[in-house]
Amino acid sequence: MNLLLLTSDDFAPGRSDVAVLYGRRLKHLVTVFKAEPGKVLRAGLKNGLVGEGTVVLMEKDRAELRVSFATPPPLPLPLILICALPRPKSFKKVVESATSLGIKTMYFIESWRVDKSYWQSPVLAQEAVDELMTLGLEQSRDTVVPAVYFKNRFKPFVEDELPGIVAGKLALVAHPYEAQACPFAVAQPVVLLIGPEGGFIPYEIEMLRKTGCTPVTIGSRILRVETAVAAFAGRFW
Amino acid sequence: MNLLLLTSDDFAPGRSDVAVLYGRRLKHLVTVFKAEPGKVLRAGLKNGLVGEGTVVLMEKDRAELRVSFATPPPLPLPLILICALPRPKSFKKVVESATSLGIKTMYFIESWRVDKSYWQSPVLAQEAVDELMTLGLEQSRDTVVPAVYFKNRFKPFVEDELPGIVAGKLALVAHPYEAQACPFAVAQPVVLLIGPEGGFIPYEIEMLRKTGCTPVTIGSRILRVETAVAAFAGRFW
Repeated sequence: MNLLLLTSDDFAPGRSDVAVLYGRRLKHLVTVFKAEPGKVLRAGLKNGLVGEGTVVLMEKDRAELRVSFATPPPLPLPLILICALPRPKSFKKVVESATSLGIKTMYFIESWRVDKSYWQSPVLAQEAVDELMTLGLEQSRDTVVPAVYFKNRFKPFVEDELPGIVAGKLALVAHPYEAQACPFAVAQPVVLLIGPEGGFIPYEIEMLRKTGCTPVTIGSRILRVETAVAAFAGRFW
Repeated sequence: MNLLLLTSDDFAPGRSDVAVLYGRRLKHLVTVFKAEPGKVLRAGLKNGLVGEGTVVLMEKDRAELRVSFATPPPLPLPLILICALPRPKSFKKVVESATSLGIKTMYFIESWRVDKSYWQSPVLAQEAVDELMTLGLEQSRDTVVPAVYFKNRFKPFVEDELPGIVAGKLALVAHPYEAQACPFAVAQPVVLLIGPEGGFIPYEIEMLRKTGCTPVTIGSRILRVETAVAAFAGRFW
């Protein structure tokens, strides 16, 4: 945690300058920051500015910080991620690390090789996703919560929604087979599609091509989704 | 596991074409590959060729595969990673994901902000590191085991060993402060240094500069080490 992300719920009643912490963040304050009265920490307001908080009270079950916010959060990455829904363990890593990279829009979509059971996983619940995004924001000192969408039908998504999403952007499908080398240092916003384990099937690749998405590769190695997302993100900007 | 990595110990006595599997890999064969007699899997020989294995026997406590190896593993990434020793949980992720990216030489070094306790962690034991590398190789269908070195004194490493390591290569220190933008699509092999949580201290950066290492940044966000390694790796080639 490199930034303490605060929400309106964290503030003392009627105060916008004193935050009160319990639970996970109190524990983190104690164990990682070794916080004690007078300690100054980086803090941010959810979807708002970044600033700092000074610990003014440290008790067993609560801490109080006097906070002030002054500077804008880091710029977002101009990258929309569209990812075949990965297995739950991998989904968690992707949401957290994509958030830390500054990705602000993520779609998790159906694809032929997505195991149907993944759609039932409790990790897709809004509360669980919120927690993963919070971890990613705290890691990268950001405050702006990404939008995460789930699309459990491939064809309607690609036909009805994808054309609007890719309009005016560079649309690329990570595909290790029959693909050209992925460009470096691009000038436009990018829409990056990443397939499931085993890749998109030829029919899906064909539909994506027709929607203006170009298959690209960064090498023949099969990477974990979260590793691939970071490798592509580092390549574009 | 996208490749079954076999060692000489896995072969039936006196046979180089029949492998016998137990334990973790037997379990993986059953649960992930749903292996049964006749099933063909991608397999590789540790530090050797890649090929395939056909399941010829599937019992409760063992499986037998007839194997043959024909093609070379994917090319290594021309990147030497030198990383301030991260906390154990992070160390594990870095070794596994760096291995999957094709990095063949990793140094984990002391730095002012490395917590001394990290050097005592059982995850640094050769057997534990071997297992992490195996996971990375199986993920990316590679067979060539990386070399991992531990250097628990900063100054002697930088003065005595680093000059030889960086000679003829592009030497870069990931450093979000006072640094130039990291180059894209480089032509040379790269030595990439990554600091601890909180970064290298100014004295260390100065010593690294004197050894020919250039501080570079891919943005102001603080990334997890494994995310940063992937983002840099994707940027160079």
